[in-house]
Amino acid sequence: AAHAASNVTLYGRFDIGYLKKSDTSLQQVSGGDVRLGLKGSEDLGNGMSATFQLEGRFDGDTGAKSSNRTFFDRESTVGIKGAFGHVRFGRSISAFEQGISYIDIGRRSSAHSVYNENYGVATRHSNAMFYNYSAGAFSGGFDVTTKGGYNDGVSTSEGNSGTKAGWGAFAKYKANGLEAGVAYQDDGVQTAKKIRKEWGIGVAYTFKPVTVGLSYAAGKDDVVGTQAKLKNYGGYIQAALTADDSLMAMYRREELKNKNTTTGIELSKEKITHYGLGYVHNLSKRTSVYTDIARIKKDTTGTTSSSSSYTSYDIGIRHYF
Amino acid sequence: AAHAASNVTLYGRFDIGYLKKSDTSLQQVSGGDVRLGLKGSEDLGNGMSATFQLEGRFDGDTGAKSSNRTFFDRESTVGIKGAFGHVRFGRSISAFEQGISYIDIGRRSSAHSVYNENYGVATRHSNAMFYNYSAGAFSGGFDVTTKGGYNDGVSTSEGNSGTKAGWGAFAKYKANGLEAGVAYQDDGVQTAKKIRKEWGIGVAYTFKPVTVGLSYAAGKDDVVGTQAKLKNYGGYIQAALTADDSLMAMYRREELKNKNTTTGIELSKEKITHYGLGYVHNLSKRTSVYTDIARIKKDTTGTTSSSSSYTSYDIGIRHYF
Amino acid sequence: AAHAASNVTLYGRFDIGYLKKSDTSLQQVSGGDVRLGLKGSEDLGNGMSATFQLEGRFDGDTGAKSSNRTFFDRESTVGIKGAFGHVRFGRSISAFEQGISYIDIGRRSSAHSVYNENYGVATRHSNAMFYNYSAGAFSGGFDVTTKGGYNDGVSTSEGNSGTKAGWGAFAKYKANGLEAGVAYQDDGVQTAKKIRKEWGIGVAYTFKPVTVGLSYAAGKDDVVGTQAKLKNYGGYIQAALTADDSLMAMYRREELKNKNTTTGIELSKEKITHYGLGYVHNLSKRTSVYTDIARIKKDTTGTTSSSSSYTSYDIGIRHYF
Repeated sequence: AAHAASNVTLYGRFDIGYLKKSDTSLQQVSGGDVRLGLKGSEDLGNGMSATFQLEGRFDGDTGAKSSNRTFFDRESTVGIKGAFGHVRFGRSISAFEQGISYIDIGRRSSAHSVYNENYGVATRHSNAMFYNYSAGAFSGGFDVTTKGGYNDGVSTSEGNSGTKAGWGAFAKYKANGLEAGVAYQDDGVQTAKKIRKEWGIGVAYTFKPVTVGLSYAAGKDDVVGTQAKLKNYGGYIQAALTADDSLMAMYRREELKNKNTTTGIELSKEKITHYGLGYVHNLSKRTSVYTDIARIKKDTTGTTSSSSSYTSYDIGIRHYF
Repeated sequence: AAHAASNVTLYGRFDIGYLKKSDTSLQQVSGGDVRLGLKGSEDLGNGMSATFQLEGRFDGDTGAKSSNRTFFDRESTVGIKGAFGHVRFGRSISAFEQGISYIDIGRRSSAHSVYNENYGVATRHSNAMFYNYSAGAFSGGFDVTTKGGYNDGVSTSEGNSGTKAGWGAFAKYKANGLEAGVAYQDDGVQTAKKIRKEWGIGVAYTFKPVTVGLSYAAGKDDVVGTQAKLKNYGGYIQAALTADDSLMAMYRREELKNKNTTTGIELSKEKITHYGLGYVHNLSKRTSVYTDIARIKKDTTGTTSSSSSYTSYDIGIRHYF
Repeated sequence: AAHAASNVTLYGRFDIGYLKKSDTSLQQVSGGDVRLGLKGSEDLGNGMSATFQLEGRFDGDTGAKSSNRTFFDRESTVGIKGAFGHVRFGRSISAFEQGISYIDIGRRSSAHSVYNENYGVATRHSNAMFYNYSAGAFSGGFDVTTKGGYNDGVSTSEGNSGTKAGWGAFAKYKANGLEAGVAYQDDGVQTAKKIRKEWGIGVAYTFKPVTVGLSYAAGKDDVVGTQAKLKNYGGYIQAALTADDSLMAMYRREELKNKNTTTGIELSKEKITHYGLGYVHNLSKRTSVYTDIARIKKDTTGTTSSSSSYTSYDIGIRHYF
């Protein structure tokens, strides 16, 4: 028991809510929103320490392990930390997410949208080495996978012939109310999330009690004969009404085009626009309640053109443990 | 570590035994009988607290996650507790089980029977809101799922058209050796466990060292053209021989009929009779050993009529941690 | 929380590395090398205690639960410990592994080889009772499964007709630098790992700072018309260069023959030779780094004869928590 107390910390988050989309009946939603982790460290002397962390996600509404996810899909690393930085091995958050996702606080007002994963590249890399360093207001890092080592969920193409290594790098600055980040990432694997290569920049500034943020990301992917291009930009404003209440509004737009590289003809185009409005009230240090409204519009042009839009509302509770 | 110590409690139960049925060879049995959970709470002030709990079951004889069960199939909830009661969201024990299952202590002497799940409605609801309140000797509560939100194990039909919400309510009284409960439950989903709608009542009385209990439950389910009816009743007597030894005997009978609602003709009828005799010896506060004998008789009338019966014996150990 | 602190210990191991085989590209390897467990005990008085342990393996490079393994595949037992010994029920390490695997420290220098599971019988038994006893320098034990109760990973044939019980026994001696063990095991199930019945002997002697070990194992399996024979022998030498550095070298050879029992004609023969060289440096009490080189040669004679060999290199980190 002393062993457990000294070496391992159990922690997590339980987020569950109700969602009403304009085109479906009321649902209880918590897909992937329960997180459970273990972490620990050991002093190695000379200012160094060994670290490990394992974290997975679950569906709180049914108690299920989130489908198409490895058990510890959010983090599975062991590493060494010291004055030189922190190096970890395994699966963790990739550089793009580390570099500019914090700009994306509007994601909170997502009304559990299917479009809340804004960027085209992978959120996490498997079979990778992660390096992080920070000095004062500056921080940065990179990660690199083995050839084919990035896996999106469960399967991996590591060791398959023709596969490439994935990698990414980011740099951040945070001081005096200003946060800014820049990142580049190449997932290596052709069948990546939305796009294989992407760069992005984000800036947020706080003049209390208001924070304003802007981000821009662009990516492309080349397969023999076709080229995909992704553009993603957005902004948000957040206002702390009281110490425990905050209101936020966000706008985000994504454009994904595919063209024939021989003829130059555009094959398809998808435009997604996302407006969100959110409110969070803290009940305590670890527990909050929230409500969101989101409006999503999707236009697809191509062999079959279509346009759809819906409004969704949610209300929920989030508890950290 | 301080974080873990203050926020999360790890707990569980390990039950494993040997079972000999008259018609099969000796088996080691622990299907679903290992339980592992995490729970915690946070003081919110004003006599309120936030709570969370995650609990799943495993097969102790092989170490496997119990099949056709979500990972945290026994409990997956977050909620708020206060003078107003306790409200939780997610997956937990449904009202029928909360209301009268404690009457069913004869279940202990089941010799790991396949017929030990006595009631026709679901033991748990997913995608639900649970409310519990207690005042002195009285307690009660209800739960309600989203439309199609109840899932029996792994799959869910939430959001499917034509689905209905499941719900249930119960009330209990416990004082001066008397325990009594009443419950009603409607699982909403047509393809529920055995029956969709059921009500039940249970009473137990202790005049030391003897406790006697009786329960009765009845349910029905209508599908176009046919109607299923379930009747379930039983009783038990338990005697505390010493502070650490108790003996119990139980009788339970279940009758499930299906009839054609147009012609009124009975299509099938199943009668299961269950006699059990059990003995438990406590080795300590958290560890006990037990042995049971059960006799099961099953008569089926319908397109193919059959009758089968068997006797089963078990011996096992149960440890709480 | 007090409950958790007093009853349950969370522990584990995180091992991850890079592997380069002469015939494939560089891989990050941690298949099954992350272990996570819970254990605890309760004082029963009279020098006795109740014990439980649950332990499973994960792939650290992706965070996945290791495939074809039950969740707690390494250990899932509850038991009673006292002056009489320790009796446990469930799934645990079988007798062969308990008896002579400690002789096989050369396994450490395996360069994550597919041939590092040296013995023919199962490493673990499910649906079993395990008994262990020790007195001074001597220790020993046995285990016995139910009929068909041994399962290799996930499935079980328990209760299937014609199945047999698996069992094994071992004895060990350890004192004055000498370690010696002998074991016999019969997995019972025909479709066991490599062979159904095997016996083995191992001896290791330490004259500081050098340890030398030798082991020999032989097994056979009879199916109607054919007989398989397995022979497995090897040795190692380990030298502690400093308190935190050790070097080891190992040699291992496995011969698996199949013959027609009617005609006496040899149907197939497989010979695997394994040379390994390993180095471990302890960074602390719980963290080490290592590197290995291994050379594997495999000759197959039979309907299709073939010969293959490869060299593999690895470098990795291992952290206990």
